[in-house]
Amino acid sequence: MTAHRDSTEPTPVDAPTPSRRIYVPGTLYPALRVPMREIVLGPTRTDDGRLEDNPPVRLYDSSGPWGDPAFHGDVARGLPPLRLDWIRARDDVEPDPRPPMAPTDPAHSRDGHRGAGADARGAGTADAVPPGLQRTPLRAKPGRRPTQLAYARQGIITPEMEFVALRENLGAGGRRNDGDGTGNDPAGLAAGASSCVPSVFRRFPPRLPRRITPEFVRDEIAAGRAILPNNINHPESEPMIIGRSFLVKINANIGNSAIASSIEEEVDKMRWAIQWGADTVMDLSTGRDIHATREWILRNAPVPIGTVPIYQALEKVGGKAEDLTWELFRDTLLEQCEQGVDYFTIHAGVRLRFIPLTARRLTGIVSRGGSILAKWCLAHHQENFTYTHWDEICEILAAYDAAFSIGDGLRPGSIADANDEAQFAELTVQGELTARAWEHGCQVMTEGPGHVPMHLIEENMHRQLEGCHEAPFYTLGPLTTDIAPGYDHLTGSIGAAMIGWYGCAMLCYVTPKEHLGLPNRKDVKDGVIAYKIAAHAADLAKGHPAAHARDHALSKARYEFRWEDQFNLSLDPLTARDYHDQSLPQPEAKTAHFCSMCGPQFCAMKITEEVRRYAADRGLSPEEALQKGMNEKAAEYRASSPENNLSP
Amino acid sequence: MTAHRDSTEPTPVDAPTPSRRIYVPGTLYPALRVPMREIVLGPTRTDDGRLEDNPPVRLYDSSGPWGDPAFHGDVARGLPPLRLDWIRARDDVEPDPRPPMAPTDPAHSRDGHRGAGADARGAGTADAVPPGLQRTPLRAKPGRRPTQLAYARQGIITPEMEFVALRENLGAGGRRNDGDGTGNDPAGLAAGASSCVPSVFRRFPPRLPRRITPEFVRDEIAAGRAILPNNINHPESEPMIIGRSFLVKINANIGNSAIASSIEEEVDKMRWAIQWGADTVMDLSTGRDIHATREWILRNAPVPIGTVPIYQALEKVGGKAEDLTWELFRDTLLEQCEQGVDYFTIHAGVRLRFIPLTARRLTGIVSRGGSILAKWCLAHHQENFTYTHWDEICEILAAYDAAFSIGDGLRPGSIADANDEAQFAELTVQGELTARAWEHGCQVMTEGPGHVPMHLIEENMHRQLEGCHEAPFYTLGPLTTDIAPGYDHLTGSIGAAMIGWYGCAMLCYVTPKEHLGLPNRKDVKDGVIAYKIAAHAADLAKGHPAAHARDHALSKARYEFRWEDQFNLSLDPLTARDYHDQSLPQPEAKTAHFCSMCGPQFCAMKITEEVRRYAADRGLSPEEALQKGMNEKAAEYRASSPENNLSP
Repeated sequence: MTAHRDSTEPTPVDAPTPSRRIYVPGTLYPALRVPMREIVLGPTRTDDGRLEDNPPVRLYDSSGPWGDPAFHGDVARGLPPLRLDWIRARDDVEPDPRPPMAPTDPAHSRDGHRGAGADARGAGTADAVPPGLQRTPLRAKPGRRPTQLAYARQGIITPEMEFVALRENLGAGGRRNDGDGTGNDPAGLAAGASSCVPSVFRRFPPRLPRRITPEFVRDEIAAGRAILPNNINHPESEPMIIGRSFLVKINANIGNSAIASSIEEEVDKMRWAIQWGADTVMDLSTGRDIHATREWILRNAPVPIGTVPIYQALEKVGGKAEDLTWELFRDTLLEQCEQGVDYFTIHAGVRLRFIPLTARRLTGIVSRGGSILAKWCLAHHQENFTYTHWDEICEILAAYDAAFSIGDGLRPGSIADANDEAQFAELTVQGELTARAWEHGCQVMTEGPGHVPMHLIEENMHRQLEGCHEAPFYTLGPLTTDIAPGYDHLTGSIGAAMIGWYGCAMLCYVTPKEHLGLPNRKDVKDGVIAYKIAAHAADLAKGHPAAHARDHALSKARYEFRWEDQFNLSLDPLTARDYHDQSLPQPEAKTAHFCSMCGPQFCAMKITEEVRRYAADRGLSPEEALQKGMNEKAAEYRASSPENNLSP
Repeated sequence: MTAHRDSTEPTPVDAPTPSRRIYVPGTLYPALRVPMREIVLGPTRTDDGRLEDNPPVRLYDSSGPWGDPAFHGDVARGLPPLRLDWIRARDDVEPDPRPPMAPTDPAHSRDGHRGAGADARGAGTADAVPPGLQRTPLRAKPGRRPTQLAYARQGIITPEMEFVALRENLGAGGRRNDGDGTGNDPAGLAAGASSCVPSVFRRFPPRLPRRITPEFVRDEIAAGRAILPNNINHPESEPMIIGRSFLVKINANIGNSAIASSIEEEVDKMRWAIQWGADTVMDLSTGRDIHATREWILRNAPVPIGTVPIYQALEKVGGKAEDLTWELFRDTLLEQCEQGVDYFTIHAGVRLRFIPLTARRLTGIVSRGGSILAKWCLAHHQENFTYTHWDEICEILAAYDAAFSIGDGLRPGSIADANDEAQFAELTVQGELTARAWEHGCQVMTEGPGHVPMHLIEENMHRQLEGCHEAPFYTLGPLTTDIAPGYDHLTGSIGAAMIGWYGCAMLCYVTPKEHLGLPNRKDVKDGVIAYKIAAHAADLAKGHPAAHARDHALSKARYEFRWEDQFNLSLDPLTARDYHDQSLPQPEAKTAHFCSMCGPQFCAMKITEEVRRYAADRGLSPEEALQKGMNEKAAEYRASSPENNLSP
């Protein structure tokens, strides 16, 4: 368990594609370097044998410095503090002169913030956090609100905001890669072009400009419709944005448990998850060494890190929920804020009076955090202390720009319990708490279910937008059936794609191990890919202007038998290439104008080439060629048809 | 290639679950034995230590005799002819006195039906079809229409119709397994209970009775809204029904190609696909030995088998599409009708004048059958011969009760081409052809796309119901993004679940190898499971009365830590059990009241048990318990809480 990575050993990262890392500079902030992955494509060979270039395709890249071949990092020293100068330049924060909060155990539980507990620094876990990862925490100066929401409301466009604007545009106008000459109109894909518009759009239409500007980013954050979760003590993180006017994001959960896994494995899983495209990572560790595991993850994470702080609080009281106290929870929050956690799941909507509503459910309470607080409420017959201390919690989070992810502790754990009274009662409180957190200048998203059959998904989105004042929605699943343990990444991605289309801002992945065990590396990858598919399908359906280019370029490559381009543009080039190799391992097959499905004799996709050539040879449009169509032309064509001449 | 199964060697079928095969008898036809899989569940242990039985759960089972442990079959002799007596008893068919049609090559291409070609019997493939698989084909007596549609219109309830009624009900009322005492109302899951109703339902609402009766089956078939595809020469097949008033079905494609695979592998894949739940199988072989491969598959298939006959016709002319003739195609149809193919994909909607519409597409024509006919049309500058000979085709199919699956040769092959003019032009013709086929007494479904982003899926369903007069829709995919080769079972299952909800009757699976290569056994299984999930999610969303019981039973088992029951109720018990074993291999873990996600210390699901016990101990409802909630009660509860007493 305590054996963590030997820092001299290279992490085995399978490079997903032979692509290149590029950086796009800012305009307002010219020193910005926004990372993207650029796929260089081969040329198209035209009917008359000319070669036409295909522009490179830029992809969103959440892998951070670890995805830059020029970066040679060391997990024992952590990533460079990208945002530190921006944070300091705003002059709203200062180093905390007191020693950092340390992991507390019951003996150290303190009455007031700092003081008595200071001597606990590093106790028990000092060995696990090497000096290279230790930082002096920052906090807000008295009376200051160093949150992106506060800046946005003041009309300030921060470097973080310009960063995400460039990132969302993939460095240019959303339609950049569409000029392919095929006459397709990608704008026709924008929501509203079809006769089918989700009813939720009538009241809450997608807010998608053709180009994301820094001012648009600021405006969405100021209105609370988007969050930019970047704790001032996590300067290693690259700015990203969560809101329904932006690309749908996905979260990957990692974390050890009382049963299994080590710090080393968790840091590896974090890097593995972002390599495949996770936008944020939640560390849900529940076993020992929670503090040290989190420190290792944060210092090496270029993406926002979320936690459920009640998990660590429960460890501090030896797993006895009724021994939890507000003070202990508060200190845990402070400890994690100082470490740099970017968003917290807090189940303050689990109010005492809602708990009986769950007793008649098929599957009761299935949220771990929700049930911890439910147990505390029952044991003390008192209101949930995170609800009663909400304003104090807001003040703590505002001082570090840690965002809220207001938990859904009463989410349904089965199809039978979906959209029930308990769930929607909590949602109302989530909305109330959202408004109060905004008053404190805090960024907020709210969490949603869970297990929901398809026909009940839209109602979740509608009620959340209405009840939570358009704060970003962050859902787990939704799993559209209970009958497929072992495949819940799939039952979940169906629901995730749909709710993403309807307006959900971030999708928490589900791995194939859901309900069965802890995910290993393969499970993490499978979960991330499944949810990247769901998020992208949602971006296409809601009409995000930057979404379509990748599908277009990949299908064009497929149609032109540019196999390598097709692989490189795919979400998982290694698997795509491997599957092709299984049928046609010969190197020549990578340039062949056929595939193993039909073989070389007859290929469906060749036919349209012939249709085009037929018309072009006659200087006609395809329609004209057919309208003029005399039988002699047909005979002529038949004589000249390049039959069986399907070689590359 | 010619090495087919040694008939003495047992096929390695991994039994998916320790369940039992049962047979439900008929009422109208008491001799019917409708196969089902029954999962026997363990008891629930109540709070006061009593054991309460859980009723067994019956599942739809498409595996046929191969799924019956008491059946010891031999693939070289085929399955028993289950329906032969029913077919003969109707006295509408007679053995064809002439020798069966044999696979023809260009030299044997004949002018008239039978005669000159008779001497080709078995030529070239006699070795591949052993005597044990050879049958004398039946055909309609002159002037008779032995189709289920014709019987339904005459008011006749055939044994096939009662069989499917029992099968769809899982042997009883749809709500049979719902009486679990938890107070859940599964009826709340019926479509319409939520505020979100797909707009297609306004004009074409789901037609779901609470109980499927034989008369309802007859009525749906008579109206053309459902088909019961069972060729009179495929008496081995067990009746099943395809229509939007019934459980959503899935099809698995198999078939060798010019590049790879053998007869043995294809028969194995068919058995493998139905073991995991495929409702029909299409044999899309394109290489040599098409006739023999199909014979092996049909004689061993308890599910309907579909083909695309133009594939074999193309083989007969050496792959030269322009050499195809109506006569050759007609003879191929007859040959396959005599073998027992249950439904045919025929791309008669690919009309000459639509072909130019595809020239400006990003990905042209991607349907193999569609492009073969497009090439023929172009080469001859004549109308598609399957369109011009439609009435003759109908007469052939009606004589064997082979059903139509009118192809969508111009389906979109990329997101960019979805819902375009070419696609919908063909759909209009599919509707016209449907109506004409009905006049001949033929059963019809129509095929649909393809690559479709989520927001354009509903329009497909709406236009199909409208244009094709509510004939069942059978779609491939729809793939909701192009960017995930290697994972298209997943991009497709998202679209499949949605279109199934909207009213699609059958979903053609997509495997992970789509676009990349030919599926192996693992791919077939992955594709089937992904599409079973989609179909079941759709059944839940559209409110099929028999769908909910399995989710309910599985979630109840999960909640009560009946691990074995949870595994056995799942779509893939082997994988579910294996994943659980990876974290907790100890036998005790299978009865433990915790899992590896949280460990034994604190389990979310235990809390609701405690909430219930808390109330029960006081003789109160949970709501009353809280309303009365005095602090002393809370203290009392805290003192009596069975802390850390979470042993099994």
